[in-house]
Amino acid sequence: MAGRLVVIGGDAAGGSAASQAKKRNPSLDVVMFERGRATSYSACGIPYWINGAVDAESDLITRAPEQHRANGIDVRIRTEVIGIDVEERTVRWRSHETGEEGTEPYDDLVYATGSVPARPPVPGIDAAGVYGVQTLDDGVALRAELDSGRVQRVVVVGGGYIGLEIAEACRVRGLEVTVVDMSAQPVGTFDPDIGSFIADAVRGEGIELVLSDGVASVDVGSDGRACAVVRASGRRLPADLVVLGLGVRPNVALAREAGIPLGTSGGVAVDAQMRTQVPGVWAAGDCVESWHRLSGQRVVVALGTHANKQGRVAGINIGGGYATFPGVIGTAITKVCDTEVARTGLSTREAEGAGYSFVTAVVDSTTRAGYFPGATPIRLKMIAERRSGRLLGAQIVGKQAAAKRIDALAVCIWNEMTVDEILSLDLSYAPPFAPVWDPVLIAARKAFDAVEDDVRSL
Amino acid sequence: MAGRLVVIGGDAAGGSAASQAKKRNPSLDVVMFERGRATSYSACGIPYWINGAVDAESDLITRAPEQHRANGIDVRIRTEVIGIDVEERTVRWRSHETGEEGTEPYDDLVYATGSVPARPPVPGIDAAGVYGVQTLDDGVALRAELDSGRVQRVVVVGGGYIGLEIAEACRVRGLEVTVVDMSAQPVGTFDPDIGSFIADAVRGEGIELVLSDGVASVDVGSDGRACAVVRASGRRLPADLVVLGLGVRPNVALAREAGIPLGTSGGVAVDAQMRTQVPGVWAAGDCVESWHRLSGQRVVVALGTHANKQGRVAGINIGGGYATFPGVIGTAITKVCDTEVARTGLSTREAEGAGYSFVTAVVDSTTRAGYFPGATPIRLKMIAERRSGRLLGAQIVGKQAAAKRIDALAVCIWNEMTVDEILSLDLSYAPPFAPVWDPVLIAARKAFDAVEDDVRSL
Repeated sequence: MAGRLVVIGGDAAGGSAASQAKKRNPSLDVVMFERGRATSYSACGIPYWINGAVDAESDLITRAPEQHRANGIDVRIRTEVIGIDVEERTVRWRSHETGEEGTEPYDDLVYATGSVPARPPVPGIDAAGVYGVQTLDDGVALRAELDSGRVQRVVVVGGGYIGLEIAEACRVRGLEVTVVDMSAQPVGTFDPDIGSFIADAVRGEGIELVLSDGVASVDVGSDGRACAVVRASGRRLPADLVVLGLGVRPNVALAREAGIPLGTSGGVAVDAQMRTQVPGVWAAGDCVESWHRLSGQRVVVALGTHANKQGRVAGINIGGGYATFPGVIGTAITKVCDTEVARTGLSTREAEGAGYSFVTAVVDSTTRAGYFPGATPIRLKMIAERRSGRLLGAQIVGKQAAAKRIDALAVCIWNEMTVDEILSLDLSYAPPFAPVWDPVLIAARKAFDAVEDDVRSL
Repeated sequence: MAGRLVVIGGDAAGGSAASQAKKRNPSLDVVMFERGRATSYSACGIPYWINGAVDAESDLITRAPEQHRANGIDVRIRTEVIGIDVEERTVRWRSHETGEEGTEPYDDLVYATGSVPARPPVPGIDAAGVYGVQTLDDGVALRAELDSGRVQRVVVVGGGYIGLEIAEACRVRGLEVTVVDMSAQPVGTFDPDIGSFIADAVRGEGIELVLSDGVASVDVGSDGRACAVVRASGRRLPADLVVLGLGVRPNVALAREAGIPLGTSGGVAVDAQMRTQVPGVWAAGDCVESWHRLSGQRVVVALGTHANKQGRVAGINIGGGYATFPGVIGTAITKVCDTEVARTGLSTREAEGAGYSFVTAVVDSTTRAGYFPGATPIRLKMIAERRSGRLLGAQIVGKQAAAKRIDALAVCIWNEMTVDEILSLDLSYAPPFAPVWDPVLIAARKAFDAVEDDVRSL
């Protein structure tokens, strides 16, 4: 069955959707619009390209426009979709190269516009010299600025994942870096007893960390460029460069204008097959909201892994197959210098917000048998529902080989296991890899004791 | 409620059982007999003490006799139990120090005698100079032999986990090492497409690996010591030292004599609470058989992690609590030089043996995003049941940070997940930790494709 698929956005979600749909149904005409120059790249890799760990910009690109074209996809780069007519089933586009505009009809449309950096609504925030790090073009601009040699002092507004990654990248380049965050700790999605290690690691890098103090305004110099960040407390931080590290918001402007319904979280509302509420329109990636399997709430989680999966699901369905996206449980991982952190499920604050009552257990163990060379400390926290003992969340902080262990706990949560069940799991053991009681099992034992103590106290 | 608990064997299972029982019921009299000098030590750590990675023998000991005694446990080291009277509820013991014998009554008995190295039934195998590596005393004797400077050529009989670990330890010490195994690959519990990497790693260490050729006999010199291993093919391998690396058998001699029933696998038969079929007698650790959750068969798996869990379960029940051991799924991990390997669930051969029909998928990916510095190859194999797509087994081979990822798959198998479910899991992603499609998810996608292709062909 022939047909016409238009995809808005050529990165993870859009690229995956286009590829899968074309693969399943080769007779489909697929047009993919991408505002920037690149397609299917790793936005998450940008900090590592900026700090020099990754050699070339091209290393970040999984599938360039010409590769998509070789697969029969009509890719239009530097071409922005500026309007969607869901009645007529057309999109209006404009070329950034030529200024030309035109209209493209579709039978199916995939809305995969990604996200935009969150900007605090303060004076000066839109000045030149204030950079987001959302697209590869953002990264190119930021790196060019750093390469110019003009920058000595960097202020990062917001200590989220990307904020800290960019702060570290700038520090690796020898710059003076300050991170400003209005919370009491960076990466506020971790509980304080885990997050404090992140703060220590950031400071250990020689990065100044200003907490519990937001941004009041950005001072703009006579050249029209940002030259300082003014804190809520009034102190002024001179800056040659300002980076937005607060996280992102779904890029839904076009959808809103077109009448494609958004969900309660602000992302485009989709069903399990990644269908929006408008016939023929699908959506995937950072711009959509997902079902959180633990809280039952709709959430926006901007992560390449979800974007790829959601794009694949939309593409399979458009191509005549059947697939669903089953939701998220909030798994995330990062590293700051040699400190690794990871989380899955709900934090204590999120669990409270979702109406759960719970007990917690924190254990300090080692990544290998304690006597084995190279064993390093690992701290693991579990959050278990009262009475049922169901694991609601887990967090890990440690050094090399610590954080990726979160995956086993993510699978436990996915399957709604109780800590009592978890402590008996047949996990791998040998001295170079774990103590004979794996940290996961020790934490589960301790959490189970807490659950039982709580039941006794009822 | 007072009572008298006698524990036979003071390592992982016995030590855990004694500790838990005493903790739950402090009025219990607990006597723990240990044939050797040490209690609660890491037998799995012995190879790393022999190669010098672990400094001191004492580093391997989690809880020494005096520590158990401080917890109120009457530990009798160098004292062997030589008979059990299950009617009278007594054990007969003999001191290795004094030769003294005596009788000890019990209300509850824990049989935790561990395992003994498997010995091929060939002439000369019991000669001096042929070493097992099962107890800390074995390790001490082996290390003393190596420290004597008398040993230049080592032959390891059997390429199981412990065999390879000891072979590597001897090689690290600069010795000439040959491993002889009658199978076509070492560590036969892996499929050939994974196991071949283990063989390469062993050979890369400079260890001679003789496969598909068993041991016909051990030559004994005029001094009564083993001096060569004769292969089934007739070739003679001179040896200053012979190490048994075939794996272990449950140590059930005493149980058999006492009429404590064994199971079909040759280990002591126990129920979910670790009770044997004889009133008042419990058993735990390497000497018991466990239920394999996938094959439904009873199996003996000698691993410290199971021994600790089973001992804990027995101790809790004896102390008046309630706990069960839910069985095993065959998870194992090891490393040879810098090659890490791990498995969980059933291998293809085991799956066939259990009556399953299946498809397989093998993927080659990287431990980090492909562009990220330090990304190393990882190969992951999945075995999925036909039609249902249930994951039956998984194997991993790679370098640093590869093998411990098996835990996530162990949790998938534990929960009877299908590869279709697995490919949507919310696993952790950031470029320093994984490609945007984690190797686990890629393998699940490929296995799912194989399941669907198979269904279409029916």
